[in-house]
Amino acid sequence: MALSEFEIIQQIFQQHKFDRQDVRLGIGDDAAVVEVPEGHELAISMDTLIEDVHFPKDMKPKDIGYRALAVNLSDLAAMGAEPAWVTLALTIPEANESWLKAFASGFFGLADQYNVQLIGGDTTRGKLSITVQVHGLLPKGNRLSRSGAQVGDQIYVTGTLGDAAAGLRFWNEPDHSFSWLKKRLARPTPQTELGIGLRSFATSAIDISDGLVTDLGHILSASNVGASVNLEALPLSLALCGVVEFEKAREFALAGGDDYELCFTVPAKELKQIECLKHAGQISYIGEIEAAPGLRCLDRDGSELDIAGLAGYQHF
Amino acid sequence: MALSEFEIIQQIFQQHKFDRQDVRLGIGDDAAVVEVPEGHELAISMDTLIEDVHFPKDMKPKDIGYRALAVNLSDLAAMGAEPAWVTLALTIPEANESWLKAFASGFFGLADQYNVQLIGGDTTRGKLSITVQVHGLLPKGNRLSRSGAQVGDQIYVTGTLGDAAAGLRFWNEPDHSFSWLKKRLARPTPQTELGIGLRSFATSAIDISDGLVTDLGHILSASNVGASVNLEALPLSLALCGVVEFEKAREFALAGGDDYELCFTVPAKELKQIECLKHAGQISYIGEIEAAPGLRCLDRDGSELDIAGLAGYQHF
Repeated sequence: MALSEFEIIQQIFQQHKFDRQDVRLGIGDDAAVVEVPEGHELAISMDTLIEDVHFPKDMKPKDIGYRALAVNLSDLAAMGAEPAWVTLALTIPEANESWLKAFASGFFGLADQYNVQLIGGDTTRGKLSITVQVHGLLPKGNRLSRSGAQVGDQIYVTGTLGDAAAGLRFWNEPDHSFSWLKKRLARPTPQTELGIGLRSFATSAIDISDGLVTDLGHILSASNVGASVNLEALPLSLALCGVVEFEKAREFALAGGDDYELCFTVPAKELKQIECLKHAGQISYIGEIEAAPGLRCLDRDGSELDIAGLAGYQHF
Repeated sequence: MALSEFEIIQQIFQQHKFDRQDVRLGIGDDAAVVEVPEGHELAISMDTLIEDVHFPKDMKPKDIGYRALAVNLSDLAAMGAEPAWVTLALTIPEANESWLKAFASGFFGLADQYNVQLIGGDTTRGKLSITVQVHGLLPKGNRLSRSGAQVGDQIYVTGTLGDAAAGLRFWNEPDHSFSWLKKRLARPTPQTELGIGLRSFATSAIDISDGLVTDLGHILSASNVGASVNLEALPLSLALCGVVEFEKAREFALAGGDDYELCFTVPAKELKQIECLKHAGQISYIGEIEAAPGLRCLDRDGSELDIAGLAGYQHF
């Protein structure tokens, strides 16, 4: 007997093997049952990705699967949480087996890398939309958040900024010089290990999904502080500077979302904890937390850039 | 300054007050942080509702909000779990304030009733779609599942069956005689307390979302058993019997989904535990678990009804 399309889906998502001991009951009942280890709390985050809104219509299904999980793992990274379990609500226009297999290979490839087990979800028919919820573990009372930045803390970001936004802008350019930028959009790397490492001494953290100005702004308002950012310290990739003028690159770095790098604050007395990372070029010092409310982006000559027009993506 | 539509949403979903002590960090950071009490496990279930697929296009937003949470709480009920936290991924075509307020009032009205706290989610723009994930608490190692039914166990269902399916069929009928059936579709009651009560002695349980034949079928296959159901024992409402012929009512009861009643199995030695419920008419004995695989629906005269054509809803 031929498999129904529903059975294809079940087999694609249920056949992948995991072996986390803390999953007491996996996919296939009315609910999954998991156990949080003693002395730990659970971090929970949910993100929806919609075709043409959160990713281009022609993004490869393997990349869509990867990205849907990656952007959620990035939220856990910003909390300093260790990824554990994931659920997936997948809405698809039709049960196309090759599309589903490619999507699943991207999703499970990343899940395996972080030992994250798929424990449940729902599959429905409609316009392509993916909602993923991730669940991560935190030692009790020990987490990163947006609200702990203190006056005098240094502000850091991981990696380079603006690449994914440029990748989106030039998504339809066939030239090879854009391919690394497009990959930054399609396959962001969640900063999981770094987030866990920062947990014990960083005062605040957030992942950059809506652009540095917007996301650092969330830290500032949650922490009731302000900040100055040195524009010349913004980490820009060679790939980005190779395809746009410097001014434009800086704009992508300030306002472009989708990089899923971390922005975090560290008190002066803890700076030796991040010396190695700084030397290795994995993180960049970009500015300082100040008492005066608001965000000031200062050029080399001390002049302030007008960032009012640089807001991140607004859904409505 | 006028509120942006995004701010309207934030205020609608963030302003509702909860006070669960086990929520360490609620809405507003990269992730929520919750604590599972010692000696407990976590039951997790996720369901997506799409307009025109899972509910009629003209269902009231207050009912949509209620229903999106209710069908998820029903999954927790089928596990015997105590509801604790919920996340909501809401995709809406436009940020219509009155629609959102009505949706939220239905959602939060039910959430408050069960002391379930909204801890996070995502709001995006697109065709109306609602994904809800619920999180419930279970004493360690003590849960209901689909897989424990034993030969000789009695099969019970709560409430009456087929009402919601009839409500859907007659959704556009203005006559008052259909209104109770339509309400059964719009506002199903999760069998939370009963599920918790059954946890210590029922051998299996499932909620009836796809119809008795399909859902009892899940228990049978997960438990590697078969069953006979007495057709004349199926609990039918007066409202249902008032609008369709007896034969049709029976068909709704067997194959109609969306009632969100529980179907469960109880060993003979535990029957005194449910005597009160039986007397009160809250549950009905409908048949028995047998060794022979498959489901047999038997009429009063012993003849078997052909149930092959009665399968529940298929998405693909």
